Amino acid sequence: MDMLDLGRKILASQPFSVLLGAELIHLHEGAAEIKVPITRQLGQQHGFVHGGVVSYMADNALTFAGGTVLGPAVVTSEFKINYLRPARGDALVARARVIHHGRRQTVCRCDVFGLEGDDEVLCATAQGTISRLSMPS
Amino acid sequence: MDMLDLGRKILASQPFSVLLGAELIHLHEGAAEIKVPITRQLGQQHGFVHGGVVSYMADNALTFAGGTVLGPAVVTSEFKINYLRPARGDALVARARVIHHGRRQTVCRCDVFGLEGDDEVLCATAQGTISRLSMPS
Amino acid sequence: MDMLDLGRKILASQPFSVLLGAELIHLHEGAAEIKVPITRQLGQQHGFVHGGVVSYMADNALTFAGGTVLGPAVVTSEFKINYLRPARGDALVARARVIHHGRRQTVCRCDVFGLEGDDEVLCATAQGTISRLSMPS
Amino acid sequence: MDMLDLGRKILASQPFSVLLGAELIHLHEGAAEIKVPITRQLGQQHGFVHGGVVSYMADNALTFAGGTVLGPAVVTSEFKINYLRPARGDALVARARVIHHGRRQTVCRCDVFGLEGDDEVLCATAQGTISRLSMPS
Repeated sequence: MDMLDLGRKILASQPFSVLLGAELIHLHEGAAEIKVPITRQLGQQHGFVHGGVVSYMADNALTFAGGTVLGPAVVTSEFKINYLRPARGDALVARARVIHHGRRQTVCRCDVFGLEGDDEVLCATAQGTISRLSMPS
Repeated sequence: MDMLDLGRKILASQPFSVLLGAELIHLHEGAAEIKVPITRQLGQQHGFVHGGVVSYMADNALTFAGGTVLGPAVVTSEFKINYLRPARGDALVARARVIHHGRRQTVCRCDVFGLEGDDEVLCATAQGTISRLSMPS
Repeated sequence: MDMLDLGRKILASQPFSVLLGAELIHLHEGAAEIKVPITRQLGQQHGFVHGGVVSYMADNALTFAGGTVLGPAVVTSEFKINYLRPARGDALVARARVIHHGRRQTVCRCDVFGLEGDDEVLCATAQGTISRLSMPS
Repeated sequence: MDMLDLGRKILASQPFSVLLGAELIHLHEGAAEIKVPITRQLGQQHGFVHGGVVSYMADNALTFAGGTVLGPAVVTSEFKINYLRPARGDALVARARVIHHGRRQTVCRCDVFGLEGDDEVLCATAQGTISRLSMPS
């Protein structure tokens, strides 16, 4: 199975990602891209996408990017996100890439964009640590 | 209308919070508490609650806490979260409080706990900045 | 050698900590406190203490706190700091404590205060991850 | 006075930056670069540069980058840093750039490299918020 197929299988096994309509668009060594079509149920009180959707996307894209170099058994240990503009458009896309990787951890960055037609607007940026899960022996 | 009633009205006007089943448990000056009953649809692939739910809760509790001192027109500008343990139990609760507030911004902290019966287990901790929205004149 | 003595020996072996005049005031399981007397050479252009001194103190106090549960061979992997007020007074003190610890990492928080006479003013707050150094075999 | 000259004048008015031997190498709209020659007094106990020096550099380069779009009266409100590798070499250089700017705040990123001969090794990466100082009227 290639990396993207495996990633899509993992995403499809996350009920919360299914609930939000998340799609894995790209996945290759050191990079991941997740898309979420914007629907009314993802909104906050002013009609924009809720920040919690944006942070979910950043978190998950960071994890998938880290997983491309650490293997599929990974978790986000921590991340930080700056919200830059209201999240809106037809869809959001989160693009994460590995900045540095060690044996057990990677540090990744992620930008989240609002897509409207051919336009992309940066609406948040994140940085975090992805860790390989310790497997019980 | 008292603060908690106003807060619940705001939470109820966020479709994403409604989708996740979030409830505002406490809201008083400098503090907010949000609860989300754990359901299967909030999960990730290993059966725990998805980190995106936890980050949503931290983000939203931080915003509500900040709103108690800055007024209801606030947003989370940025936050950082450390995931400490798998999120599980019957429900999650996020407790946020204001650490410092200026005229336009507050800095808040939030702990997220998994509740199982009478037990509470800390599963994540966050710190962030809440900003008053600039109103167009 | 008790924990505080060992910690002071480590601090004294850091030339940068000696340059800044840092003192280890307390060190016990799960907590560390570092003090830096304010001198003119630690300032920025407006007469307050430079933010870099405050971030040094947060970083180092986090590391020492983590070291009380992980052992002396530790490093700060990452941290986040919010500056709350100008740092000033007679001295600064950074108080860190362990929030959660695993086998290889701890998550700690740190508050930095400006001391002036008997007054303490919170001027920054930080949160970060301390990791045990992997020893070459 | 051009932007780089003004920046150097500001850096020279920070006693802590003078103590550390910091030099402003580049400064133009949206970007700043600060260099610190490595000396023994900047070290920690293992012979590498102390993390506090790295965080000072990230903090200060972020502030200078933000200042190129917000004007010279700025402060770092908050930042987050991930340490990636031991900081060593002949000098460290911090390169910051503006990711997004609003009227009162910018969000910037900064990479810190160790320089040894012609080699550059990334040793830390940071992200933070720079704010315009509110001037008393």
